[in-house]
Amino acid sequence: MSENRQRSILVFGAHPDDIEFGCGAVLLKEAGEGARIHFVICSRGESGTNGSPEQREVECRTAAELVGASIEFLDCGGDSRIESTRAIAMMFAGVIREQKPDLLLAPSLVENQHPDHCSVGRAVRDGARLARYAGIEELKTKEAHAIESLFYYAITPGAEPVGETALVIDVSEQIDSWRGVMACHASQMKTRRYLELQVSRSRTLGLQAGVEYAQALWAGDALFLDSLNSVPRGIRLF
Amino acid sequence: MSENRQRSILVFGAHPDDIEFGCGAVLLKEAGEGARIHFVICSRGESGTNGSPEQREVECRTAAELVGASIEFLDCGGDSRIESTRAIAMMFAGVIREQKPDLLLAPSLVENQHPDHCSVGRAVRDGARLARYAGIEELKTKEAHAIESLFYYAITPGAEPVGETALVIDVSEQIDSWRGVMACHASQMKTRRYLELQVSRSRTLGLQAGVEYAQALWAGDALFLDSLNSVPRGIRLF
Amino acid sequence: MSENRQRSILVFGAHPDDIEFGCGAVLLKEAGEGARIHFVICSRGESGTNGSPEQREVECRTAAELVGASIEFLDCGGDSRIESTRAIAMMFAGVIREQKPDLLLAPSLVENQHPDHCSVGRAVRDGARLARYAGIEELKTKEAHAIESLFYYAITPGAEPVGETALVIDVSEQIDSWRGVMACHASQMKTRRYLELQVSRSRTLGLQAGVEYAQALWAGDALFLDSLNSVPRGIRLF
Amino acid sequence: MSENRQRSILVFGAHPDDIEFGCGAVLLKEAGEGARIHFVICSRGESGTNGSPEQREVECRTAAELVGASIEFLDCGGDSRIESTRAIAMMFAGVIREQKPDLLLAPSLVENQHPDHCSVGRAVRDGARLARYAGIEELKTKEAHAIESLFYYAITPGAEPVGETALVIDVSEQIDSWRGVMACHASQMKTRRYLELQVSRSRTLGLQAGVEYAQALWAGDALFLDSLNSVPRGIRLF
Amino acid sequence: MSENRQRSILVFGAHPDDIEFGCGAVLLKEAGEGARIHFVICSRGESGTNGSPEQREVECRTAAELVGASIEFLDCGGDSRIESTRAIAMMFAGVIREQKPDLLLAPSLVENQHPDHCSVGRAVRDGARLARYAGIEELKTKEAHAIESLFYYAITPGAEPVGETALVIDVSEQIDSWRGVMACHASQMKTRRYLELQVSRSRTLGLQAGVEYAQALWAGDALFLDSLNSVPRGIRLF
Amino acid sequence: MSENRQRSILVFGAHPDDIEFGCGAVLLKEAGEGARIHFVICSRGESGTNGSPEQREVECRTAAELVGASIEFLDCGGDSRIESTRAIAMMFAGVIREQKPDLLLAPSLVENQHPDHCSVGRAVRDGARLARYAGIEELKTKEAHAIESLFYYAITPGAEPVGETALVIDVSEQIDSWRGVMACHASQMKTRRYLELQVSRSRTLGLQAGVEYAQALWAGDALFLDSLNSVPRGIRLF
Repeated sequence: MSENRQRSILVFGAHPDDIEFGCGAVLLKEAGEGARIHFVICSRGESGTNGSPEQREVECRTAAELVGASIEFLDCGGDSRIESTRAIAMMFAGVIREQKPDLLLAPSLVENQHPDHCSVGRAVRDGARLARYAGIEELKTKEAHAIESLFYYAITPGAEPVGETALVIDVSEQIDSWRGVMACHASQMKTRRYLELQVSRSRTLGLQAGVEYAQALWAGDALFLDSLNSVPRGIRLF
Repeated sequence: MSENRQRSILVFGAHPDDIEFGCGAVLLKEAGEGARIHFVICSRGESGTNGSPEQREVECRTAAELVGASIEFLDCGGDSRIESTRAIAMMFAGVIREQKPDLLLAPSLVENQHPDHCSVGRAVRDGARLARYAGIEELKTKEAHAIESLFYYAITPGAEPVGETALVIDVSEQIDSWRGVMACHASQMKTRRYLELQVSRSRTLGLQAGVEYAQALWAGDALFLDSLNSVPRGIRLF
Repeated sequence: MSENRQRSILVFGAHPDDIEFGCGAVLLKEAGEGARIHFVICSRGESGTNGSPEQREVECRTAAELVGASIEFLDCGGDSRIESTRAIAMMFAGVIREQKPDLLLAPSLVENQHPDHCSVGRAVRDGARLARYAGIEELKTKEAHAIESLFYYAITPGAEPVGETALVIDVSEQIDSWRGVMACHASQMKTRRYLELQVSRSRTLGLQAGVEYAQALWAGDALFLDSLNSVPRGIRLF
Repeated sequence: MSENRQRSILVFGAHPDDIEFGCGAVLLKEAGEGARIHFVICSRGESGTNGSPEQREVECRTAAELVGASIEFLDCGGDSRIESTRAIAMMFAGVIREQKPDLLLAPSLVENQHPDHCSVGRAVRDGARLARYAGIEELKTKEAHAIESLFYYAITPGAEPVGETALVIDVSEQIDSWRGVMACHASQMKTRRYLELQVSRSRTLGLQAGVEYAQALWAGDALFLDSLNSVPRGIRLF
Repeated sequence: MSENRQRSILVFGAHPDDIEFGCGAVLLKEAGEGARIHFVICSRGESGTNGSPEQREVECRTAAELVGASIEFLDCGGDSRIESTRAIAMMFAGVIREQKPDLLLAPSLVENQHPDHCSVGRAVRDGARLARYAGIEELKTKEAHAIESLFYYAITPGAEPVGETALVIDVSEQIDSWRGVMACHASQMKTRRYLELQVSRSRTLGLQAGVEYAQALWAGDALFLDSLNSVPRGIRLF
Repeated sequence: MSENRQRSILVFGAHPDDIEFGCGAVLLKEAGEGARIHFVICSRGESGTNGSPEQREVECRTAAELVGASIEFLDCGGDSRIESTRAIAMMFAGVIREQKPDLLLAPSLVENQHPDHCSVGRAVRDGARLARYAGIEELKTKEAHAIESLFYYAITPGAEPVGETALVIDVSEQIDSWRGVMACHASQMKTRRYLELQVSRSRTLGLQAGVEYAQALWAGDALFLDSLNSVPRGIRLF
């Protein structure tokens, strides 16, 4: 992976706050290191208990701006109605071809969470394959693109993949800006418990890893290394 | 992980040829990049069908020399008698304190293989913890040491861990020297099928990864990354 | 299972080359022992990077002929658009009732592969149940049929089911004819790496099993034996 | 597997009644088809709540006679004291070399059962490997032997392996003789609930398989088939 | 959980007899303890081999009456055509909002069973989430509702979830009334084997648990306890 | 489970602080509800980096007193030398017969943690079975005893069992007293990070469960319920 050019990261979220809660601290870190980040938001959260679609879009655009990410909204059938159809995957493949990211981030595939999360995760996984196949009729106007890696993020602790190696990233220096990014979603802050859950989760993981705060991603694919010189160290404090 | 100093790798094998067959190509690559490598061999293969203990020790020393590794033999009860006792783990912890490696490599923990392999794997895993605890009486003469990472290698396809993310390393340039290292174990070459199994396995994995030949390791711990800049790419050809 | 009549095998593939790459050697062996084999191909590979639909159909028909199999193409929505809907399963159930196979072969259910593969696998699994239920309105013109067994094949190493017992079949004598069958897919042979991957995978498995070349299938159901006289032997070389 | 000679089956049990309860019906069937069967009993059940060691040995010898099996008792440290040490595995390897079985049966490896069961299962698994290695000093007086297959039986429902393909055998015709064999263990029949558990379990499995009564074994290894002509049918009634 | 008011249980079944076969004995017990029970039947079994839709509806209504449950039939596309779409989940969410149950019961999510079973299970799982989100447009006429618990039942032994803790309920006193409830489905009693399978399964489980008959449910979520005073005891007879 | 008598809980810990860190808050709650609690500590932590054995015993006795638990120390070979032998399980069985607990708590069986933790967990699991068998010679002076339940606690997040249903207990009111109990282990408080890890973990779990703080246990056995009236509610906030 060439290190002297700007990395490009494409992140999909089902609802306006999923990305910020699930991997916001990591993205702040990457943005700080010069990555180009693009958010794709698959609904306006219009089925949630709090917040109008307009309000939620504004909150989300503000948060993306704080992260330094560009943003677009896709119509995937509406909040709570996102299914993992091939048509959705095809639409995602189109965005992947447009954005040509190095890294792709998506919600985890765990089924026992908000069903939109898993639907988006699956459609991203499949869309990343479709983006490579040059013969797909409706995608032909866009150049085929192969990403480097797809990683999953977990919006809640219950959505963390089981039985896969976690990739843990130090976000100690991002903790304050991350709180700010999450707080953009004012309509979801009736209580601050959801924000606090994320910070507490990050603190627990950081203490395990020997840093202050951390956030994890999960790889669905085997990982390729040039040599052990670039191998990540293991988390072995306990 | 500081990249401008010599990495130190400590590798445990149950029998004289396990290391070469299970992760020899990776070690050749690391040696070529300047790593300091030390082999610990836990038996002289004296229970195998072919080869005397003396012959097997010579073969193993020759192979280590080709890799550029230093080598020592430990008495762990004898070939086919190695158990994963705490006494063995304590002995391994002692070696770890002496060698102070960055990386530790051990046979995988899969139970349905030669029982010595799994025993050594478990004792290395436990020994790596014991090496850190400063109060252990019989280890007090040696300074406590915390490794960076423990990775497992699989001596046969059936020993590959299931449900853990594989770390795949390109060994295309090492394939010839690796054949040479494996061939040092002349007593085990009655037929060349065992060597050929390893090369065929490596070729299959390489073709999956988009290179000529590859060899995999498995991490038992979550992995810690400074940022996504250093994240390995995923294997996604198919 | 009566051994003195011709076995009937029905094989589903998502794309024109899936069957040949995933279980072609096994089918050549079965054909050689007198089995009646029928291919159902669920697309013409029209979304692939290479090869026109017409060319791919011709390649596939040629390959089927080499295997000695009859063949039909189904319209399942098009290459890269095959979903595991009940309508597809119902269509597959209709074919199962027509062909009345003893054995059914389908792509594995692993999700992290070309999404069409998994879709076809699931629809075959469900279709095999629907084929038995006598009251299904749109299938009433065809006699209900219960297959003996459903086995899954893996088109790539990454599609091999984890945590299920593999059934490994010696295909040493079929290796040359299998190469020939795979080579029929000339449009996919821009490089020979895909063919070589299959041969290398088969060689690796064969060396594990103590033969020259082998190919595996996986059973999704518990297996029923009249007695241990007919139990397959275990693979225990290592 | 040559079918025109007498099969040889070696079965290990931790306690005097384990074999009869866990796979007695299968063994009665095999004996009826001409198999030579040998029981190795690793304790005299002297730590159980009911029955003296002398009584339990007599019960076990009577049951073995009903099955038509020869029998021997090994001293493995005593009932409730059997550990899976290499010394025990070595002793088992010696018996395997003496008996030269085609098939080996052992208690399942599930840990959450009577600890002796799992210990014997592990030691049999390891002993089957040791039996093959020609260089093991203390076994040199006995010719090395490679078995064809190792299968596990489950003494209780909770001991059934999870995530492995079950091999289900029709024992409908053996149900009465099996009851008789289990009833030999009169000291364990204070209530008939344990015998009834086995019969009820067998009935439940038989109804699933479409026969009257059935008993399952589990293979720890991949299975090797000459062709699909000899493949067991799947259990697919529901 | 307040114990001095009537509990409310909502149960979904794909076909007219699924509930009775899969958790009928548990429901009889709960009804006997004063629970209010409502059945939702998602087809009239019109694709089954035996019984007309009219007959099956009558059978089901009779069975529900014996249980003391109210009942409704939903149109989910028809027997053998039930898919786990968001539209179905939305419809189920509507019923959940109407019925406002404490407990929700659904068929297990195991895929290798009648595909309607798994579809209904998934749609109930997702519907239980949707029932809570206040902003969903088409559900706005009904008050949002959060259930206490969702448990899964297994219609056949092959549908029992693997790797999740079973919750086992003593139904010894319900065995006769349960037989009666199952027998209401006269059209499915061509042979009594299906009924007998359930009774045999229940007997096997009861013998494991130290009672006469038992039936199990499985929780998809972590369980919340006020204290260990209310913790269920473990099943540890063997 | 009779609720009008004092419950008895027996807890095993490998080192002087394991119980307090792994399940201290739960025990404080149980003690507050009148349970009789007994600690068995299997070493004096003499191999740890900080604290003399004498100091650690005093710390542990102080903590147990704060919990209101009686305490005893067993010699299991010494800190970092505890193996899961049958002799240790037999010793534990003796304590179980003496204490006659209703509930038994032990460290989880996850292998990738301090090896003493897993060893103690396994020996408790096996000891709980041995405690029931009336014929065991060296235990005959003590009356056989069958516990009601065995639950596992996780000393670190990495030790939490995967794929088993968690039982989550509200410890919001115990959080301050729990901090006090953990703080008794002054020698382990060089930094307060270990204590903070536990509190942060408990906070994260509490936020998931809708309370302030929570702690989890895991059941190794199926759970037995009289009826759904006593079933714990599911954790379903997200």
